[in-house]
Amino acid sequence: MRAEIVAIGSELVSGQGLDTNSQWLSRALEAHGIPVAFHTTIGDQLDDHVSTFRIAAGRAELVIMTGGLGPTQDDLTREALAATAQVSLREDPGSLEAIRRMFARRNRPMADRNKVQALFPQGAEPLPNRVGTAPGIWMELGPTTFACLPGIPSEMKVMFHEHVLPRLRRRGWINRSIIERKINLFGRGESDIEADALDLTARGRVPEVGITAHDATISLRIRGEGANEEEALRQTEATAALIHQRFGSMVLGEGAIDVSEAVVAQLERTRATLATAESCTGGLIAHLITAIAGVSPFYLGGVVSYSNVAKATLLDVPSELMESYGAVSPEVAAAMARGARARLGADISISATGVAGPSGGSDEKPVGLVYLGLATAAGVQTRRLDIGPEQPRDIIQRRSAKIALNWVRLTLRSWPDRTP
Amino acid sequence: MRAEIVAIGSELVSGQGLDTNSQWLSRALEAHGIPVAFHTTIGDQLDDHVSTFRIAAGRAELVIMTGGLGPTQDDLTREALAATAQVSLREDPGSLEAIRRMFARRNRPMADRNKVQALFPQGAEPLPNRVGTAPGIWMELGPTTFACLPGIPSEMKVMFHEHVLPRLRRRGWINRSIIERKINLFGRGESDIEADALDLTARGRVPEVGITAHDATISLRIRGEGANEEEALRQTEATAALIHQRFGSMVLGEGAIDVSEAVVAQLERTRATLATAESCTGGLIAHLITAIAGVSPFYLGGVVSYSNVAKATLLDVPSELMESYGAVSPEVAAAMARGARARLGADISISATGVAGPSGGSDEKPVGLVYLGLATAAGVQTRRLDIGPEQPRDIIQRRSAKIALNWVRLTLRSWPDRTP
Repeated sequence: MRAEIVAIGSELVSGQGLDTNSQWLSRALEAHGIPVAFHTTIGDQLDDHVSTFRIAAGRAELVIMTGGLGPTQDDLTREALAATAQVSLREDPGSLEAIRRMFARRNRPMADRNKVQALFPQGAEPLPNRVGTAPGIWMELGPTTFACLPGIPSEMKVMFHEHVLPRLRRRGWINRSIIERKINLFGRGESDIEADALDLTARGRVPEVGITAHDATISLRIRGEGANEEEALRQTEATAALIHQRFGSMVLGEGAIDVSEAVVAQLERTRATLATAESCTGGLIAHLITAIAGVSPFYLGGVVSYSNVAKATLLDVPSELMESYGAVSPEVAAAMARGARARLGADISISATGVAGPSGGSDEKPVGLVYLGLATAAGVQTRRLDIGPEQPRDIIQRRSAKIALNWVRLTLRSWPDRTP
Repeated sequence: MRAEIVAIGSELVSGQGLDTNSQWLSRALEAHGIPVAFHTTIGDQLDDHVSTFRIAAGRAELVIMTGGLGPTQDDLTREALAATAQVSLREDPGSLEAIRRMFARRNRPMADRNKVQALFPQGAEPLPNRVGTAPGIWMELGPTTFACLPGIPSEMKVMFHEHVLPRLRRRGWINRSIIERKINLFGRGESDIEADALDLTARGRVPEVGITAHDATISLRIRGEGANEEEALRQTEATAALIHQRFGSMVLGEGAIDVSEAVVAQLERTRATLATAESCTGGLIAHLITAIAGVSPFYLGGVVSYSNVAKATLLDVPSELMESYGAVSPEVAAAMARGARARLGADISISATGVAGPSGGSDEKPVGLVYLGLATAAGVQTRRLDIGPEQPRDIIQRRSAKIALNWVRLTLRSWPDRTP
């Protein structure tokens, strides 16, 4: 049993657009135990459609197609599928009615050309689309099943879940459940973590563990397999526990969680209030925190002290300090953190000052040098980061911001639980 | 003349990774007048390689492949190409020596298995790789030319420019130049701009103009074609002038420029200093500005006034104002802008206060309601935005931040040029 994904659209094959549907569908099929062997992308040419459908029918039992179901002359999936099967097109009254209703709901007139979206090859089953106008198509061609879905990702995903998955189950093509658990870590480099996880990532281990890195956050992915979801989940449990035990405070959490979500979770747990004072990160720490809904009770605010006047007037950093040590110094980082905490009456504050580059670096203070300050009732601490002069500005800003937030997270971990 | 791109790798076909090489290659080929008709992605199975290469040879004159050139057993491109051509593999001494030297330069021992990277099908030409260990392959199979490049994007791109393009020119396959100019607009919706550009985007117009939208920035892409680059560029000139004339102050600039770059360009031109005061955008305005290198002389800093205490202590917003009108009000937006400008001594300041959601909305002040304030020596103005309660938090934040920055840009446009 092998599957093929076909993406249709001249904008994809010409490189104007990037096809992400095929990747999504591959992951979704593989998660249900159906291996995908081919992706094919074609433009809006009828001959290429027909030859591609024939090739796919010759090498895959399941072909999932996206795109080419719209109302324009470039949308050839219906016609090409009929030509491949050597049948004619027929109008489906139910689909036509559904398209009419969709236009009525949106208070828009239905153009005559939209009627073609209700045409289906003889013998095909329409797949209703409750989120758009283009119905999908389900059709058998000899030993191969074709499922045609709209190219708009949001519509495609809904229809895959509502129409494709249930039909694959009924067919008996899905009888294994595969689940993937992703545990995210932050605080050390990928190669360090990899070296400490060699036994977990060894080939042939059950369950399999993969390692990936994104924006300095390292994900360990455990792949559990079983007759159903519970069994698949059970298979992952010992491995998940081992990862938690081995990597301890580096574990941010499970799922799509990143450092900022983990900080907000700690703020909620401890009911602590936070203030920020940013120079080189220029508001990025604040932005990462406020991107999380529900943080308002805990994040009081901050200062983007991009100039010395901002450091002096908004954070009470003494001018002598900036003159003696320079704006990029542990002394100024400490004063910034202290100032933000005092001004806003926060429990904890974090500051960052550094050289984000690409210019402004010197031998003494190179691009990528960043000082962080962290103030609590217990006093203020500072840390020096050397992100590296070869790094681009956005990496220096993102890396510093995430390390700063992670420092807040690690500090709050030892504070008592005050969940109401 | 048609081309096919083949991407090789189990991680791609299974959806673990996203193939971006094919899109890049399509754009590069199309920019030189070679249309791409197919993308195919396959995993690490020899049979699938051979059948795919045969299909490609039957429908394309040029096949560019990426991946499968590494030293492991999963890397089958060499072997599969030899099987397709029904020839044997031979060792290329020059390539072996180059691989040895690459390892020596990196101070790493060369494993025995790396020797397979010096094997080539009889009749193939090795393409040297000066940035990695895997040499590429150039090979004719009947009327079809195969170019095999490494899967690592940085290596692939260098080798495409250094080895593939010159060979395509020598062949006479590249004799037209195509250039694309992208003019970015901001300030109105895509459908409004589309309606005003119908004559430009009409099918068959010379030069062609396409329209795309990303994050509320609208791009008009002019595609010029000629015997060489100058001729292609010349073809676009009248259309570019027409776009500038028609869309006036909505034009941000040409290339990859977005609202933030355009604001910084105006700050540089006018030598004006800027301050920010952000509630609902939570530091995003500051982050977008400070993402641009070289803004330090003009951006003095800002306040992320996520709580009322921050608005009062850092921006001098009177508590009575917040009590009478609420934090989300034109009165508070005006006071925030005024406070930031005064505190930092800036020429111009911008503020944002609103309901980013998903919770916190009311009938009177729904999610998506945002007030902006803009203060200059001439006084303070406010604006109301209704981004819409159905929009997710990140869209509300991003849209407000970009509209705020655009307001600064439009204001500065009428200020005198002070470029030194």
